Amino acid sequence: MPSGLITLTTDFGQADHFVGVMKGVILGIAPRARIVDITHEIAPYSVTDASFVVGQAWRYFPKGTIHVVVVDPGVGTSRRPLLAEAGGHFFVAPDNGVLSMIYEDSPHKVRVISNPKLMRKQISRTFHGRDVFAPASAHLASGIAPPQFGKLIRDYVRSWNTKPLHLAEQVWRGTILSVDRYGNLITNFQIDEFAGVKTRPFEMRAGTVRIRRLALNYAETEIGELFVIAGSSGYLEIAANQASAASRLGCSAGAAIELELF
Amino acid sequence: MPSGLITLTTDFGQADHFVGVMKGVILGIAPRARIVDITHEIAPYSVTDASFVVGQAWRYFPKGTIHVVVVDPGVGTSRRPLLAEAGGHFFVAPDNGVLSMIYEDSPHKVRVISNPKLMRKQISRTFHGRDVFAPASAHLASGIAPPQFGKLIRDYVRSWNTKPLHLAEQVWRGTILSVDRYGNLITNFQIDEFAGVKTRPFEMRAGTVRIRRLALNYAETEIGELFVIAGSSGYLEIAANQASAASRLGCSAGAAIELELF
Amino acid sequence: MPSGLITLTTDFGQADHFVGVMKGVILGIAPRARIVDITHEIAPYSVTDASFVVGQAWRYFPKGTIHVVVVDPGVGTSRRPLLAEAGGHFFVAPDNGVLSMIYEDSPHKVRVISNPKLMRKQISRTFHGRDVFAPASAHLASGIAPPQFGKLIRDYVRSWNTKPLHLAEQVWRGTILSVDRYGNLITNFQIDEFAGVKTRPFEMRAGTVRIRRLALNYAETEIGELFVIAGSSGYLEIAANQASAASRLGCSAGAAIELELF
Repeated sequence: MPSGLITLTTDFGQADHFVGVMKGVILGIAPRARIVDITHEIAPYSVTDASFVVGQAWRYFPKGTIHVVVVDPGVGTSRRPLLAEAGGHFFVAPDNGVLSMIYEDSPHKVRVISNPKLMRKQISRTFHGRDVFAPASAHLASGIAPPQFGKLIRDYVRSWNTKPLHLAEQVWRGTILSVDRYGNLITNFQIDEFAGVKTRPFEMRAGTVRIRRLALNYAETEIGELFVIAGSSGYLEIAANQASAASRLGCSAGAAIELELF
Repeated sequence: MPSGLITLTTDFGQADHFVGVMKGVILGIAPRARIVDITHEIAPYSVTDASFVVGQAWRYFPKGTIHVVVVDPGVGTSRRPLLAEAGGHFFVAPDNGVLSMIYEDSPHKVRVISNPKLMRKQISRTFHGRDVFAPASAHLASGIAPPQFGKLIRDYVRSWNTKPLHLAEQVWRGTILSVDRYGNLITNFQIDEFAGVKTRPFEMRAGTVRIRRLALNYAETEIGELFVIAGSSGYLEIAANQASAASRLGCSAGAAIELELF
Repeated sequence: MPSGLITLTTDFGQADHFVGVMKGVILGIAPRARIVDITHEIAPYSVTDASFVVGQAWRYFPKGTIHVVVVDPGVGTSRRPLLAEAGGHFFVAPDNGVLSMIYEDSPHKVRVISNPKLMRKQISRTFHGRDVFAPASAHLASGIAPPQFGKLIRDYVRSWNTKPLHLAEQVWRGTILSVDRYGNLITNFQIDEFAGVKTRPFEMRAGTVRIRRLALNYAETEIGELFVIAGSSGYLEIAANQASAASRLGCSAGAAIELELF
């Protein structure tokens, strides 16, 4: 059952009225809902960034939480609004792949939101956060059952598999999923799958730079040194002690990297 | 009746202690109040920006909501603190015109806040958010009736009318109300009043640039193309697909624009 | 007794998943907790900044509030997690001096958090906000008594005394505690101790600049003028009317200044 807890993840920033308007719409429909901001600082239009952030955060919330994700470059086109259920949580988002990491993690059911009674009467062409997604989350929090929103679908958008590609015997090509505030590069090499880096020599290659050091924590490294670390996100990360690995390597989200085990 | 819901709109930013202090003061007086951030990223001292943001957001909240707006370049002078009522909502703000768009939208009553028992004992000269506005909102949420705060006044500050000026038969001079995160320029041409742009050729002029295209959504335009769109705010906006119209035109809030219908 | 109110102060920024994850962990353990953001925009790794911000904000919250402070350059090393009690409030933070201003203000008790049952099962080396501090605050909010967390200690880290140094008869050397959003420089000269500036001529020296004006409010000064003002924080501040004193003086937190009374 949906609880009254609603999280928000958007690329609206915090300087404009958009987030405040969404909160107002939610509380107008579900006055007892509790709204928790995950972030509104997703890079504008970056479905990949949002997919990573919500993919990291959702599982820590209690079951029944409703996660609203509005990063929506296709707003105003025919892209569909979705209500997904996975792992006992609920997700309200546009059908553009932004829920891909949730689909990967858990069995899931996905519906198209098509019931106009659960939207605002007038639907603008540019602000479905206000007109479609906020009302859907609030009606869900108020006890409207998921089947009331619309039909189950199977042809929702999923991003291409973000797993590393096996290039040769002990060589994989991966990618940078995200760059955090500290300039750490979060790769798509899952720690559990590539545990070999903990026991064997390895080389992580990003552009012309080669990194061979695995550190257990920042404090054991030199200031400015580049190293690989088993990040809190469950992925290998490239970091630099009190410096930005992203700046040092000139890398951002989407960049290719290689891992070789020896 | 005021509900326990209090929204905050300030230019304090989010890096300092100011917002946390205001929240602490509110919860110290009204422990069950529910605080919702609209934004703390109003451009410093920009009464115009704050007026637009709160003018957009307030109506979406449930009746009884208390909206605290602290953008206050005159703090420490004799400018008065206000408690306004409009449309079933409450507003606590300095008397500097920041509530102008609310006054325009709805019949309203405005009081000066003068009762020292509803302020902190010591009033600093620089932080009335903490000493005057937060306590007022919290006492209101706790059930203190508006007349307890102070007398009704009629000489509160209102900004000059922000409606477009009629220059010639089919020509109006308007202004940019706000620039959003995406660089969209929100004009003061209300869609309902200037619906002619939907059916007739028109020209929107900003500096040396002339725009003749009305788009229904971003997706139908070319990347980088400038166009006019009926924005979600109820005003015509100048936008560019995945680019900043503000940068393209070198325009910011307050800039003059012209609209001609043919 | 701890109330269900939990404040968060971190250097995680708001673009990443870190803050959302901490909120999820708290609400997973204590579903009725009420979470209030103080700030997540502490300068990365700046224990001094965080110490000032939480030192300013905590006293305004109601007794029983739990303040979580995660600015933690030593994460993954042997630095200890702490649960402190002071002035009827609770503080959960790393043992790196970030609570120094609270220790200065109030009698206090400090415990090391060592009970693994009150942490997440797996403790990462880089994200104790999620694995140690968020769970501790949530268990405390749920009614677990402080002695369950670990033993009282006396050898916790306190920063060197941040009081001004008496250099000569009427001359003191102080320091900049913090620079706020407006570029105001908050000194460590407490207004009550240096009330002489209100009645006697004085000179505040920062680099090569000498300031002799005390203003009561911004409005009485010229635009751009540098002056000293009795700040809302209880300290003397160096400010400039609608300009950044920090830029004008080239000063940031930690810079030395001198005060002479005549």
